[in-house]
Amino acid sequence: MEIRDPIHGSIQLNDGEVAIIDTIEFQRLREIKQLGFSEFSFPGATHNRFIHSIGVSHVAGQVFDSIFRAYPFSKTSVRNRLRQTVKLAALLHDIGHGPLSHTTEQVMPQLKKLNIKIYDEQGMDQSRQANHEDYTIKFVTDSTISKLIETHFPDINANYVACLVDKNLKCDESYFTDGNINFRPILSQIVSSELDADRMDYLERDSYFCGINYGKIDKDWLQQNLTLHIVNSKAFLALNRRALYAFDDFLISRHNMYLMVYFHHKSIVYEEMLNRYLTSPDCKFILPADASDYVDYTDYKLYEHLDSVDNPWAQRIAQRRPYRVALELHNQEPQRIENIQKIFDKHEIDSIYASSNVRLSKYHSGNPEDRMNIFVVDQYDRWDKPSPVNQATQIFQKYEDARIIDRFYVAPEKYDLAKKIFSEEKY
Amino acid sequence: MEIRDPIHGSIQLNDGEVAIIDTIEFQRLREIKQLGFSEFSFPGATHNRFIHSIGVSHVAGQVFDSIFRAYPFSKTSVRNRLRQTVKLAALLHDIGHGPLSHTTEQVMPQLKKLNIKIYDEQGMDQSRQANHEDYTIKFVTDSTISKLIETHFPDINANYVACLVDKNLKCDESYFTDGNINFRPILSQIVSSELDADRMDYLERDSYFCGINYGKIDKDWLQQNLTLHIVNSKAFLALNRRALYAFDDFLISRHNMYLMVYFHHKSIVYEEMLNRYLTSPDCKFILPADASDYVDYTDYKLYEHLDSVDNPWAQRIAQRRPYRVALELHNQEPQRIENIQKIFDKHEIDSIYASSNVRLSKYHSGNPEDRMNIFVVDQYDRWDKPSPVNQATQIFQKYEDARIIDRFYVAPEKYDLAKKIFSEEKY
Amino acid sequence: MEIRDPIHGSIQLNDGEVAIIDTIEFQRLREIKQLGFSEFSFPGATHNRFIHSIGVSHVAGQVFDSIFRAYPFSKTSVRNRLRQTVKLAALLHDIGHGPLSHTTEQVMPQLKKLNIKIYDEQGMDQSRQANHEDYTIKFVTDSTISKLIETHFPDINANYVACLVDKNLKCDESYFTDGNINFRPILSQIVSSELDADRMDYLERDSYFCGINYGKIDKDWLQQNLTLHIVNSKAFLALNRRALYAFDDFLISRHNMYLMVYFHHKSIVYEEMLNRYLTSPDCKFILPADASDYVDYTDYKLYEHLDSVDNPWAQRIAQRRPYRVALELHNQEPQRIENIQKIFDKHEIDSIYASSNVRLSKYHSGNPEDRMNIFVVDQYDRWDKPSPVNQATQIFQKYEDARIIDRFYVAPEKYDLAKKIFSEEKY
Amino acid sequence: MEIRDPIHGSIQLNDGEVAIIDTIEFQRLREIKQLGFSEFSFPGATHNRFIHSIGVSHVAGQVFDSIFRAYPFSKTSVRNRLRQTVKLAALLHDIGHGPLSHTTEQVMPQLKKLNIKIYDEQGMDQSRQANHEDYTIKFVTDSTISKLIETHFPDINANYVACLVDKNLKCDESYFTDGNINFRPILSQIVSSELDADRMDYLERDSYFCGINYGKIDKDWLQQNLTLHIVNSKAFLALNRRALYAFDDFLISRHNMYLMVYFHHKSIVYEEMLNRYLTSPDCKFILPADASDYVDYTDYKLYEHLDSVDNPWAQRIAQRRPYRVALELHNQEPQRIENIQKIFDKHEIDSIYASSNVRLSKYHSGNPEDRMNIFVVDQYDRWDKPSPVNQATQIFQKYEDARIIDRFYVAPEKYDLAKKIFSEEKY
Repeated sequence: MEIRDPIHGSIQLNDGEVAIIDTIEFQRLREIKQLGFSEFSFPGATHNRFIHSIGVSHVAGQVFDSIFRAYPFSKTSVRNRLRQTVKLAALLHDIGHGPLSHTTEQVMPQLKKLNIKIYDEQGMDQSRQANHEDYTIKFVTDSTISKLIETHFPDINANYVACLVDKNLKCDESYFTDGNINFRPILSQIVSSELDADRMDYLERDSYFCGINYGKIDKDWLQQNLTLHIVNSKAFLALNRRALYAFDDFLISRHNMYLMVYFHHKSIVYEEMLNRYLTSPDCKFILPADASDYVDYTDYKLYEHLDSVDNPWAQRIAQRRPYRVALELHNQEPQRIENIQKIFDKHEIDSIYASSNVRLSKYHSGNPEDRMNIFVVDQYDRWDKPSPVNQATQIFQKYEDARIIDRFYVAPEKYDLAKKIFSEEKY
Repeated sequence: MEIRDPIHGSIQLNDGEVAIIDTIEFQRLREIKQLGFSEFSFPGATHNRFIHSIGVSHVAGQVFDSIFRAYPFSKTSVRNRLRQTVKLAALLHDIGHGPLSHTTEQVMPQLKKLNIKIYDEQGMDQSRQANHEDYTIKFVTDSTISKLIETHFPDINANYVACLVDKNLKCDESYFTDGNINFRPILSQIVSSELDADRMDYLERDSYFCGINYGKIDKDWLQQNLTLHIVNSKAFLALNRRALYAFDDFLISRHNMYLMVYFHHKSIVYEEMLNRYLTSPDCKFILPADASDYVDYTDYKLYEHLDSVDNPWAQRIAQRRPYRVALELHNQEPQRIENIQKIFDKHEIDSIYASSNVRLSKYHSGNPEDRMNIFVVDQYDRWDKPSPVNQATQIFQKYEDARIIDRFYVAPEKYDLAKKIFSEEKY
Repeated sequence: MEIRDPIHGSIQLNDGEVAIIDTIEFQRLREIKQLGFSEFSFPGATHNRFIHSIGVSHVAGQVFDSIFRAYPFSKTSVRNRLRQTVKLAALLHDIGHGPLSHTTEQVMPQLKKLNIKIYDEQGMDQSRQANHEDYTIKFVTDSTISKLIETHFPDINANYVACLVDKNLKCDESYFTDGNINFRPILSQIVSSELDADRMDYLERDSYFCGINYGKIDKDWLQQNLTLHIVNSKAFLALNRRALYAFDDFLISRHNMYLMVYFHHKSIVYEEMLNRYLTSPDCKFILPADASDYVDYTDYKLYEHLDSVDNPWAQRIAQRRPYRVALELHNQEPQRIENIQKIFDKHEIDSIYASSNVRLSKYHSGNPEDRMNIFVVDQYDRWDKPSPVNQATQIFQKYEDARIIDRFYVAPEKYDLAKKIFSEEKY
Repeated sequence: MEIRDPIHGSIQLNDGEVAIIDTIEFQRLREIKQLGFSEFSFPGATHNRFIHSIGVSHVAGQVFDSIFRAYPFSKTSVRNRLRQTVKLAALLHDIGHGPLSHTTEQVMPQLKKLNIKIYDEQGMDQSRQANHEDYTIKFVTDSTISKLIETHFPDINANYVACLVDKNLKCDESYFTDGNINFRPILSQIVSSELDADRMDYLERDSYFCGINYGKIDKDWLQQNLTLHIVNSKAFLALNRRALYAFDDFLISRHNMYLMVYFHHKSIVYEEMLNRYLTSPDCKFILPADASDYVDYTDYKLYEHLDSVDNPWAQRIAQRRPYRVALELHNQEPQRIENIQKIFDKHEIDSIYASSNVRLSKYHSGNPEDRMNIFVVDQYDRWDKPSPVNQATQIFQKYEDARIIDRFYVAPEKYDLAKKIFSEEKY
């Protein structure tokens, strides 16, 4: 079957993929918007995680083909199995996503209640609260979907798909090994890393549906220049040096999407209002631990819920009466933020304070455990040695610092008063 | 304020327009998808009537400016009033739209119950069932919105806006008259006609979100070549002859959108299943007559409702288990259709039969009352006289006949059986 | 090697293709614009036949892969040979194109002087004037390029490539035969037919560079639905019925490109002025018979030549002082055209008269020899038999008649006078 | 008249602008490609300075309208005059451009020979060699074009247009002054600055024709957020803070265009080969001082010339047999470059060495004379003071360092040898 996608054109799906997509677990993603509240600032942005997930799977297949175009696997069946496993992991990476945004994670149950066998088997500490990734592992390893995987792809076990979604899960690595090389690292990186199929899909997709250019990247060039680099019998993602500027551009595209779209003041205030509702004593919206119940929890259900309750924050969201930005500051000193808060307090004006904070890369940090393990290979310079990408480009140093946007919002009926106060009192 | 639209770029809105858009009546359109069930065949098509309506208003302003660029209105205030009136009519033309599709119109109440004053005043027969256009007139003339219109635009009365949405409403035409010329006809045509702002928006928009090219039109050229033609002191829409091929292309673009998108077999079967539910004795989904209740009835509510009831058709929709096309025929003789139905009956297989039928133009018919009143003007040929567009182009004759697509759908579990039967029995 | 193309993205080329593209014969196409004089009306349309030719080859490969995706050739080497042959024919189909437009064909030498061996061998009548297709056959079969074909693709002979460019050339058809089926017809159709790779490239490309939408087609859907149909052991192009509306749209897109772009009044008058120069007694621009001299004859050389001679028509072109449209008529009676000519004559105003005439299809005619041999196959209707496409769709009947645009141009300095005369004298 | 542009859609031109565009001086720009040799790496990039110049004028008008949307000029005629002057300066800013690239500037005559009156009047030192900007000033102030400006726009003098092209020309600034404010600085900045109409056009245009995304910018948002800031009675360009990230993105887009397109190895080697020809003792290509002769010197003429001479570098260009990259290094130490050169010398292999060097901004330097004078204004933060843009954003610090790409090219026939040598000898 083929699906028509505005981003990638016609996407071919095999019968097993179609069967998975047709489950209610996957169809639920039609009712989870990719960008949550962003449609309030960019009204075209109504696209959902359903088409995004199919897109990521498609890109993962393309990336796999590009990296391994000339790689001599021992058998075609090994190539096919690894390719299908990474495509399935990409397809399912978001399947446990909660309604609207990460904000709803705070009404998720304790992890233990999800009853995830693979976690039990690996003796994981399950005393913490569940998050959307836990629901994903649940759906992948223990649901209609895991059975369909095994029926349609007899040489694939759902647990191995889960191992590419969550790189911390333990498994028998021989599944990912061919000719002494372990491919689990690079396959995991295709699903989730600084240069993953997820981003290659969502940057272009979000830009398209928002109607902006920030996230437009050179996907063709990046893909053609992907390769692998082997360290200690493990295969890692690598990039030809000639695509290094395209990689810089890719990182900055994402950075700018944060600044211009994901951190738009309207999205942020809706998130904050939802947060106020979910933490209210009278909040009745709780996400169920049972996966078959969870399937019903979608953006639609949450919006219907918010419309039906009396809580003032729920009503503000349902009736689109958000608080309004009174002050916005960029990379300011903490003292100034405190002064502003004090002025609000003095005048007894309720304000929502939100600080949005983005770094270029979450992978670039001092912690050697988290290093990104993407390498740069130079096909022109014979004497060059492959080096980690965060040494080969200076972009991480350049953007070492976080960007911080601080905002104070007030009720629309207090807006004029707030503006007056802050034009008189210096902060 | 400006809104970013993937189709038209930045759209500027004045304060009055923003106030209207911020009402819950208008915000409700965020939860009414433009293409209803089409997202099941084109998963990008999640766009809603909210952004479409804003787009139509924007196009109506551009069209007005193009037609009247050099027209000598008696005063600037007349120009501004007429322009704002047509922009508001365009903005609000869809505001009464029911959830998901026209299928839900059958669960609308009797028209009288809507309590529409302007209908009462004009002595209209209100014994029939209401449709979405009636709700539109209700919202435009008697709601928060009508008050906002009058507050923000003191020289505009909401009833005149309604008169451009519904060309059959009576009103004092002097409102639309300047220097002895009545502009109501052309302003109505900008809102709704063979060449209206509605289509200029939705053809491009639907194509964009579906990811196809069929609806891409030459909007710039059409707009630049729009003008007016006066007959008996009434102004009508006119087109320069040099844009006549662009007009043909525009008509065919829409025709092809019907064939390729709006009549896609998946959209059709979902419509038919919804119809089966809504006409079931156990159907509990009824649209309220009260406008303030109606505001809550959206696609989201309907999907949540379908998910919550036991009716098998509702469940098929909710769980995405549609009947499947067993047979599809194009422009076939009725006898063949009957034969097929008999074979289904003989084998006692339940089938859904749907016939989709499109003509190039609903305006092109024998009935002189319905004539389209768009004229063609030749700026090169001095001796040419303006003629009605349906005489100036042959496209209507060429596409005189309807296109008919007949389909029979069966339950997925009966699909193989049905295919077997029809490969053995000739029809 | 890969080439970046705005239409098709990254295009991969193998070493043999690169070697051919690097010849001066092929590089010459960089200096032959795809749309000749159209850049005077659409200034973005500066694209050349170089990138178009590479695009057509790319599309031909995609079309081949789509048609034969599941076809059981006897050997992989047969599949590869046929695929490469059709890609080369597509790559080279325009290589003999003269400068600027078909207008320059009238200064081509007698065919015999081109010394084309394959014509000699086949005893063709060579007393007529050569055209650009003859130069193409010359370059393909007897030049650096034919040698490169044989060096890089040892199982391919340049004459067989020529046989796909010109379907009238005779050859040993066993080259195109596998398992008793002769594939020459379908491979020829990929290069040149009502639904060929040439059009699939140029419609989108011309639209893109002109900045218009008319030529935007549903290439993905058409390609996915291409297949083959065998009649008397010969394979012909076929289309699944579900893509028949896309085919109609494809034909109309091309028709509209003629009306809106290729027949633009400015392109036409430049063609006519060039024609007047080339038929002037003092014209010194003659195309050489010798292929190695012909390589130097490009748009650039022609423009430089026009700039350097005194002839008034050459100077009008060089200095961009074209005659101007005084009258334009659509589908008029011949009598009216004659009347206009008489009025010009009476007033002794020099005018250029040009009549542009397009039918939907050159293949659709009464002559059964020229029938298009494209078939429609219905995958849903078991009892349907494959039928010729011109019976399966009504589009050819609908557009049976030609569209005719008649224009009279005058010198700019006579324009006002001409307008005055024709506003006084009825025609 | 309107012109159809793939980048900006329909562009309206008034009669005076059309008259200027129709001159042979302006039409000459049709034969000057925007990106010179870049079409050898990006074959779609055949667009010319003709459409670019029209595009810049269009953008300049939009930028003017956006900045001054609410500005109270003393009279409408002042607004119109300043707007038309900046549009003309933008339209003509490239009119003196030489064939192909800046490389041909070295065969330009001594400045004095151009006989530019306004230079004489201002007592400029004219002993240096002319450059393309001098030809621009010549055409603007002393040609058919200057007369047309004065005929069609009676309140505009061509010298003032020149003063916006060249900010160092002296003139009576009262022409640019209204209500005590001198607008010359901001109008100059619209034509040429870190955020000018030129870049707003070419980044998008070059991306479109190359088929890449690097140069796609948020033009709408930037334009909407442009404003003015007055310092000492002079108006300068200013930007609202909320568009500062869009400005960063704009700068980086341009930086990436340099790295990925303008510095492509093929463009660079063609430039270098042209340079070798133009500096050869036998070079016969000299640009004439006389403006009416200069009109004939275009890309076409230069290509025809290169084809006609025996010089080996000219022939390499004409026959597309460029030297090939043997080594490419990024931000390397000078010592390594020297080592490489020594190895080439030792083996007596002729190589072309080219070092391409780009900084984010030419305006950002230590020299206070060259400061960019663009300001950032914060519409949210009452206590913020307008600050120079290079203080408001950190982007200039981040990209303080130049990016350097060093390349060594060899003749294709020496390529394998060179690769062998450099894989054996360490450098």
